[in-house]
Amino acid sequence: MRPAALIFDVFGTCVDWRRSIARAIAAATGLPEGDAAAIALEWRAEYEPGMEPIRAGRRGYVALDDLHRENLDRVLARRGLRIADPAALARAWERLDPWPDVAEGLAALKRLAIVAPCSNGSIALMTRLARHAGLPWDCILGADLARDYKPRAVVYETACAALRLAPGRVMMVAAHNGDLAAARAAGLMTGFVPRPEEYGPGQTADLAPAAAWDIVAADFHDLADRVGAMG
Amino acid sequence: MRPAALIFDVFGTCVDWRRSIARAIAAATGLPEGDAAAIALEWRAEYEPGMEPIRAGRRGYVALDDLHRENLDRVLARRGLRIADPAALARAWERLDPWPDVAEGLAALKRLAIVAPCSNGSIALMTRLARHAGLPWDCILGADLARDYKPRAVVYETACAALRLAPGRVMMVAAHNGDLAAARAAGLMTGFVPRPEEYGPGQTADLAPAAAWDIVAADFHDLADRVGAMG
Repeated sequence: MRPAALIFDVFGTCVDWRRSIARAIAAATGLPEGDAAAIALEWRAEYEPGMEPIRAGRRGYVALDDLHRENLDRVLARRGLRIADPAALARAWERLDPWPDVAEGLAALKRLAIVAPCSNGSIALMTRLARHAGLPWDCILGADLARDYKPRAVVYETACAALRLAPGRVMMVAAHNGDLAAARAAGLMTGFVPRPEEYGPGQTADLAPAAAWDIVAADFHDLADRVGAMG
Repeated sequence: MRPAALIFDVFGTCVDWRRSIARAIAAATGLPEGDAAAIALEWRAEYEPGMEPIRAGRRGYVALDDLHRENLDRVLARRGLRIADPAALARAWERLDPWPDVAEGLAALKRLAIVAPCSNGSIALMTRLARHAGLPWDCILGADLARDYKPRAVVYETACAALRLAPGRVMMVAAHNGDLAAARAAGLMTGFVPRPEEYGPGQTADLAPAAAWDIVAADFHDLADRVGAMG
């Protein structure tokens, strides 16, 4: 049965954070492109460790906006870099460019079902990012609602509850097998869209589906076609 | 200074609940138009009393979808009416028609600032209503986030916090002076748009601004012009 709602991972699945962040770092630091690209990966590498104390209950919920800033400060300190306005650079996550198929694919999916992000980004971050990237969400779901971070089950469960839908009526869409495994464990349908360049040419993870997800699509156009073909 | 976000009352301010609900009641009951219109007003009259125990802390948070259903059951019982599918009728609040200026006015406002509902309706209800009525929200704020009901200050405060904006950067827009008074007390800017037919030809309340609100606009087109003229 066709899902009543599709909820989406955003960083990597909808938007190309790596190139957008590298560009922002180059602009903020004046460093050459290669260094900026390396710092972008270092900054993102702080992402999972930054959320882990919150997931583990050792730290209260802190929005990703603040974690991005803390993580940036850590990376800059490690490299001995000083920049004029680190707060402004931390907000570069509000201005990430979408993969080329996303805006049009989401518009087609929105004609078939409710579409919403289920990201670890805050409502504020997802709202501003949607305006920048032209993501036509019906509403913003995700970490802020649950005050916890994916892949904790409560994040997927809270998203479904906010829409008053049983998890079985909701499909989680992601380019990350781990996100889909957690969503499936919470009872959601699953859709995989590979983003083999998310981490650059050397990417080894998430190049292909790791399980029999309900849909495996080449991109968001293909996803819209496949969801549209469901009864 | 121009607000960074405009947040909106929805029932009455953006949508004509009275005529939409009367039509749904007529369809569900087969009653003549006049009776259906009277029942619509009776159903809406249960709205404030339904929320009051929650605001007062005598009852935990219950989403407006469920209060609408309870209130409908009360009205039907009082009138001795039985209908085939009261759950379906209760969901008529997801299919309210907008006032004619709203969709276009909101689209113009969205080019100037973040636009979001700050309604007592749930995320589920506001999401489905936005799809029906063509309301191009950037995100859904309101009662569900605060788990309390307007005019409690926490609802306005939580909406601003979700956008990571100080209340002074956010304008509450409503056709109801009481909503604006509460928003102003919480530190928000205020915009009044009269909806003199909300309750029908006999309406006596909220025909005019009751205080010097920051903006008083004739409709959402005028509101967009006035917000656009702010520095």
